[in-house]
Amino acid sequence: MAQSDKKTGSVPRQRRSACGVACSLDLLGDKWTLLVVRDLLMGKQTYSELQASEEGIPTNILADRLQRLHREGVVYKKLYQEKPKRYSYHLSEKGTDLGPVLLSMLRWANKYVPGTMSVAEVKALMKKNRR
Amino acid sequence: MAQSDKKTGSVPRQRRSACGVACSLDLLGDKWTLLVVRDLLMGKQTYSELQASEEGIPTNILADRLQRLHREGVVYKKLYQEKPKRYSYHLSEKGTDLGPVLLSMLRWANKYVPGTMSVAEVKALMKKNRR
Repeated sequence: MAQSDKKTGSVPRQRRSACGVACSLDLLGDKWTLLVVRDLLMGKQTYSELQASEEGIPTNILADRLQRLHREGVVYKKLYQEKPKRYSYHLSEKGTDLGPVLLSMLRWANKYVPGTMSVAEVKALMKKNRR
Repeated sequence: MAQSDKKTGSVPRQRRSACGVACSLDLLGDKWTLLVVRDLLMGKQTYSELQASEEGIPTNILADRLQRLHREGVVYKKLYQEKPKRYSYHLSEKGTDLGPVLLSMLRWANKYVPGTMSVAEVKALMKKNRR
């Protein structure tokens, strides 16, 4: 059953109820998954770029979250180097459709957590980073 | 520093970055916190009502999340019984302002997770439960 992985805190996908919030949290409910989605939405593509984010995601957590997001069709991979094999990571439509979840968190934090960036500032940063 | 509580997985509030998503996840980033907010938004008020939700929240997790949400001003308590002391739980404005976060998750799940309730169905249920 849903035994948690001791190293990463990852729990195999298992639906707790038919509630959309619960189902979303089954995949997204941790401190890191939505930060990986945020980074991909902001234009990051490679493992090392994702790892360089200022929150300092541990490498085992990053590897686990990318694998789960890939398994769930939120992220797809592209081989960009043959030897050694290296992949870049990209959001599918299912992934970019998480934009409104991130946006609603940004708005909430901007209202209640002093010193967080405004939505306008984040959008300007996204535009700058876009490849 | 941010030593996690072995029993509840709770981590003391510590900001990882100035990103609003990261700051939101510092408080909300787990499998349960937003379900408690959902239940309060849906009209539940007492500890036993919150505990009865179909996802089966463990009682130590529920107590911890209510305490954190109260500490962060998302939830306020009202004494409704003197002997023994019993409190009901309610969302502050900071709490009801999490509505759009829940709504965006609902919409995403309704598009991508088969069998989850539509926003219209959830709103009808909220209306029915309102006291």
